[in-house]
Amino acid sequence: MATHRRIKLNNIDNSGFGPNSNVEGGRLTNKDGSTNLRKTGRPFWERISLYHTMLRMPRNKFWLFIILCYTVVNLFFATIYFLIGVDKLAGINPDTPLFERFLNAFFFSSQTLTTVGYGHVAPNSITTSFVASIEAFVGILAFAMVTGLLYGRFTRPRAYLLFSHNALVAPYKGGRALMFRMATFKNNHLTDAEAMVTAAVHVTENGKQLTHFYPLGLEFSKVNSLALSWTVVHPLDEQSPLFGYSREDFLEARLELIVAVKAFDDHFSNTVQQRTSYHISELVYGARFLPMFHRAEDGTHTVLELDKINAHEPAKLAEPEISVADTTVALG
Amino acid sequence: MATHRRIKLNNIDNSGFGPNSNVEGGRLTNKDGSTNLRKTGRPFWERISLYHTMLRMPRNKFWLFIILCYTVVNLFFATIYFLIGVDKLAGINPDTPLFERFLNAFFFSSQTLTTVGYGHVAPNSITTSFVASIEAFVGILAFAMVTGLLYGRFTRPRAYLLFSHNALVAPYKGGRALMFRMATFKNNHLTDAEAMVTAAVHVTENGKQLTHFYPLGLEFSKVNSLALSWTVVHPLDEQSPLFGYSREDFLEARLELIVAVKAFDDHFSNTVQQRTSYHISELVYGARFLPMFHRAEDGTHTVLELDKINAHEPAKLAEPEISVADTTVALG
Amino acid sequence: MATHRRIKLNNIDNSGFGPNSNVEGGRLTNKDGSTNLRKTGRPFWERISLYHTMLRMPRNKFWLFIILCYTVVNLFFATIYFLIGVDKLAGINPDTPLFERFLNAFFFSSQTLTTVGYGHVAPNSITTSFVASIEAFVGILAFAMVTGLLYGRFTRPRAYLLFSHNALVAPYKGGRALMFRMATFKNNHLTDAEAMVTAAVHVTENGKQLTHFYPLGLEFSKVNSLALSWTVVHPLDEQSPLFGYSREDFLEARLELIVAVKAFDDHFSNTVQQRTSYHISELVYGARFLPMFHRAEDGTHTVLELDKINAHEPAKLAEPEISVADTTVALG
Amino acid sequence: MATHRRIKLNNIDNSGFGPNSNVEGGRLTNKDGSTNLRKTGRPFWERISLYHTMLRMPRNKFWLFIILCYTVVNLFFATIYFLIGVDKLAGINPDTPLFERFLNAFFFSSQTLTTVGYGHVAPNSITTSFVASIEAFVGILAFAMVTGLLYGRFTRPRAYLLFSHNALVAPYKGGRALMFRMATFKNNHLTDAEAMVTAAVHVTENGKQLTHFYPLGLEFSKVNSLALSWTVVHPLDEQSPLFGYSREDFLEARLELIVAVKAFDDHFSNTVQQRTSYHISELVYGARFLPMFHRAEDGTHTVLELDKINAHEPAKLAEPEISVADTTVALG
Repeated sequence: MATHRRIKLNNIDNSGFGPNSNVEGGRLTNKDGSTNLRKTGRPFWERISLYHTMLRMPRNKFWLFIILCYTVVNLFFATIYFLIGVDKLAGINPDTPLFERFLNAFFFSSQTLTTVGYGHVAPNSITTSFVASIEAFVGILAFAMVTGLLYGRFTRPRAYLLFSHNALVAPYKGGRALMFRMATFKNNHLTDAEAMVTAAVHVTENGKQLTHFYPLGLEFSKVNSLALSWTVVHPLDEQSPLFGYSREDFLEARLELIVAVKAFDDHFSNTVQQRTSYHISELVYGARFLPMFHRAEDGTHTVLELDKINAHEPAKLAEPEISVADTTVALG
Repeated sequence: MATHRRIKLNNIDNSGFGPNSNVEGGRLTNKDGSTNLRKTGRPFWERISLYHTMLRMPRNKFWLFIILCYTVVNLFFATIYFLIGVDKLAGINPDTPLFERFLNAFFFSSQTLTTVGYGHVAPNSITTSFVASIEAFVGILAFAMVTGLLYGRFTRPRAYLLFSHNALVAPYKGGRALMFRMATFKNNHLTDAEAMVTAAVHVTENGKQLTHFYPLGLEFSKVNSLALSWTVVHPLDEQSPLFGYSREDFLEARLELIVAVKAFDDHFSNTVQQRTSYHISELVYGARFLPMFHRAEDGTHTVLELDKINAHEPAKLAEPEISVADTTVALG
Repeated sequence: MATHRRIKLNNIDNSGFGPNSNVEGGRLTNKDGSTNLRKTGRPFWERISLYHTMLRMPRNKFWLFIILCYTVVNLFFATIYFLIGVDKLAGINPDTPLFERFLNAFFFSSQTLTTVGYGHVAPNSITTSFVASIEAFVGILAFAMVTGLLYGRFTRPRAYLLFSHNALVAPYKGGRALMFRMATFKNNHLTDAEAMVTAAVHVTENGKQLTHFYPLGLEFSKVNSLALSWTVVHPLDEQSPLFGYSREDFLEARLELIVAVKAFDDHFSNTVQQRTSYHISELVYGARFLPMFHRAEDGTHTVLELDKINAHEPAKLAEPEISVADTTVALG
Repeated sequence: MATHRRIKLNNIDNSGFGPNSNVEGGRLTNKDGSTNLRKTGRPFWERISLYHTMLRMPRNKFWLFIILCYTVVNLFFATIYFLIGVDKLAGINPDTPLFERFLNAFFFSSQTLTTVGYGHVAPNSITTSFVASIEAFVGILAFAMVTGLLYGRFTRPRAYLLFSHNALVAPYKGGRALMFRMATFKNNHLTDAEAMVTAAVHVTENGKQLTHFYPLGLEFSKVNSLALSWTVVHPLDEQSPLFGYSREDFLEARLELIVAVKAFDDHFSNTVQQRTSYHISELVYGARFLPMFHRAEDGTHTVLELDKINAHEPAKLAEPEISVADTTVALG
């Protein structure tokens, strides 16, 4: 068992988690890069940012929400006009059935909210004029907000990175290495890309469950340009805190890789960031990635096959030479 | 008294204050991070930025201000229409009481300003047409501004950091350290966070009151990710300009800690910054922070208790070994 | 043939391409800096960002697109009103020819979409009221989007750099150097400009076509301020991976220079980036750039002649001394 | 004459100017930081950015321009309606004098452009309906642009720095130094401020007028926080390329200081930059700055007097010891 020796390596906790932050069976960082965390002790409305929640909402949900808001606000004002009485709205026949009168109030409301204001229906009393004056104001403010939301959604800087679903323990230069890869899936171009990988290793010390965090050294931690795919490689050599880990060691430590990629995107002319994590259940022991780009048939350009981002095949791992040293430590 | 020796340490004033900037009893930097400063010698309107003032205005005040503007502009134009005479607005009965005529002018004004323009009331003279033409133009420009203001408020990058109210002199590795802590209270995530702490120490030299500024060395001045809470630690060891300070020394020096935290926020994909300060009255001598996060009961995630950000308990401080050296210096 | 020796130099592939990414006759990076790449394996709509495509669209195409959208949406709603029947729109005479009735429906639609809503034509049934209520809503959302698009187009940070069409192999300090130059063509000002040049060299090794990437050292890789023109110089000396290349060597290697320039622009107060590439067909062997700025005739300012950005004249290259060493290597 | 010796110092031209860029009597960089430069060889419209020109336009000029645009567009469409004939606009009496008919067309146009659309005047022919449909569309696009312009003006990151009008050659630590100072004049706060100063020195070599550029070393080139004022100091010691310059040497060299300040502003959460320059005519030889801040009378805060930014008094300069060495060099 190599655990003791490993712990002496640089356990630098600048992950933002603490040694006690370990969760049974779960993960520290979710697949989408958010932290598996719940905040308490402040009211809900102070803890969330509504604007940013709407910015990150999936497209369909967002549009449904906008349509819902439009309908609800219209219903709200329609009810007020209806309660005041449609006889206070010139152009609506007050002798029609209740539902038709309500519908007419609803349509007048929508004409006011959107500031169309045809005028074939118009307020003819102080109360309805007053409510309409407020509704038109609300409408303009609401659509100012929608303009901001739409613009915010359009321009939210994102890396549009596709990560391989699995991280591999792969053969590498006669030894082995931890690998995962990524590619941009949109017509964007990342430059000055930088990857940071932190390994979370759960150990039991003196009967207490502790989590150690190790920043992992990478073969290349920066690339000037992320044009095709980028395979991030952590060599499992003597410098690695995971050196000599067998399949069982990885499982026992419930290894979790926390990944952050930062780059400059020229879509947004802004720094973009994407995070993800690899849970122990997403680690494939003994495999290598298959190529995911090739020259086009007519030879004029390169083809990047995004559906092959996770394509890998089984590969025999070299016996790590340090298994001996490993035992020695266990003996000592 | 150890003051003389300390002054020889690196007093690097890159705080933006000068040695003469000391205020009686008060503080150099306010709790919200703004500087305790008044600028003179330029007209008021050149010294403030109206847009940024409205961006930082509390939400309720902001909305009240917007509603007030809408009302005032409407009243202004209503008065003009009223003075011209409501008989120049087709659709308003000029034979109604004064107040009703004014109200009708007001409603017409609001219909014009919001560009609803039902048309049941419409200008029927050159003067009213001209004023209405201006009002609609003003309305559109005003709402363009409101759109900008709302968007600016939504997207103003903020760190959403909660700081502990107190800074502590706490036991630390057999010695003592200055500590305070922070956590994000929104659903945002900070990476590459960096803290800078400057100590302002007020001394009397040759009968003159001077302020010395010392950048304080931190145990960790950077963290890759600020997921849970971050306790910033300045060890009060021999490298510290505050080494060997007793409770009385701190009081006499009227110590003020000026704190700035800078990080990358992926809500905004932008660098965010938050500043605060700890006045001598907010320094607790001999205390330690209590844990503020724990594993959730079902073990699937971590819970961060924001209401415990300032939770601390009294703690006995180790007698600093340097009290001897301290005396020696005083003797020399 | 000097190829073998060269390959031993630092072939650091952080270009984002791989050793197998070579295209017959074509280029890796297009003249406009985009990569000569096609992505597959994800649906088209996931691969492109519509917003950013519209941001980068040429001006005329963009306006045509906007006008087209306006027309199409109007036609769409006009058709609906027409199918419902213009008798459901008060103010349209239903006894006119078909085309005129359609036109009237079209105009009503445009009055609703733009929220003008004169009201001389107005919906007088539940169905048309309902459709109009939707159309006004669509109109407002569409124009919110257009506002965002226009603002995005205005404020898209760009370097506005003009590059010389050709890169030159020019005489330089008794030896030779690769040179190209650039200047900003707008009333913008770049500071802290930084250039990165990567050489892609195609070689045949063991019968396989491979591409090597070499970052090229520059005489100055940074300038504080890009006021006039900037000639980027890569000295072809012993440190260069292209040292001793003859005209034929360049051709055989199908040299491609991949260029990225990053700077801070005070128009946008943002980092801007522009990329380009020089294909072997754009390399001029034995030439020097002509001056492109001079003092104005009245002596009060400097004149930068942008049309001379590529102006160069033939220049005799010094015989590289290393042709001997070159041969030696080939012998070894 | 010390000129020859000086030239051997590091003449690093990364100012973005070239050695030949010197202007008679004039300056390379204007007081507002823009370069004294004219670009030719590209059409005017390609050389300027209309959006950014409008962003930098003074406030009054900007509003006048917006009002002018509104008037011109209205006049344009009014003319079209008038030429078509006001009988094609229901609600306008065609039997009124020409000017009144034109005015009514104008008011209808403004009601359409702003999308108020009362409807008491409405198009009743295909041609006027068509023109109105276009005008409303133009109106909405125009106001989308104005929204963008206003927002862009509000949020244009600026440093709001006030520089002293003069740079001084002042006594400094027994020797002398070049000094100028700056302060922010708005309610903004700059952090991580960095100053870069380049000296442009014009010399005659072999009968040719050349300009040398020297980056000047500063006592502090960075401050963490720019709360009060910042005096930038270049010591004129042996490391300085301007060491030993007499008043006559400065005049002969037509010294120009090119200054750039970069900082992080938390109004904008953005990097801001401001440039300026000091021409030889703005250099005061033998003077020192007067204090510009003091403790408030009630002792609770500091007062920064912005009108004293340039306040200085004559000061006797120490005789530079190097005048001897200087002569030696001239002899050699």
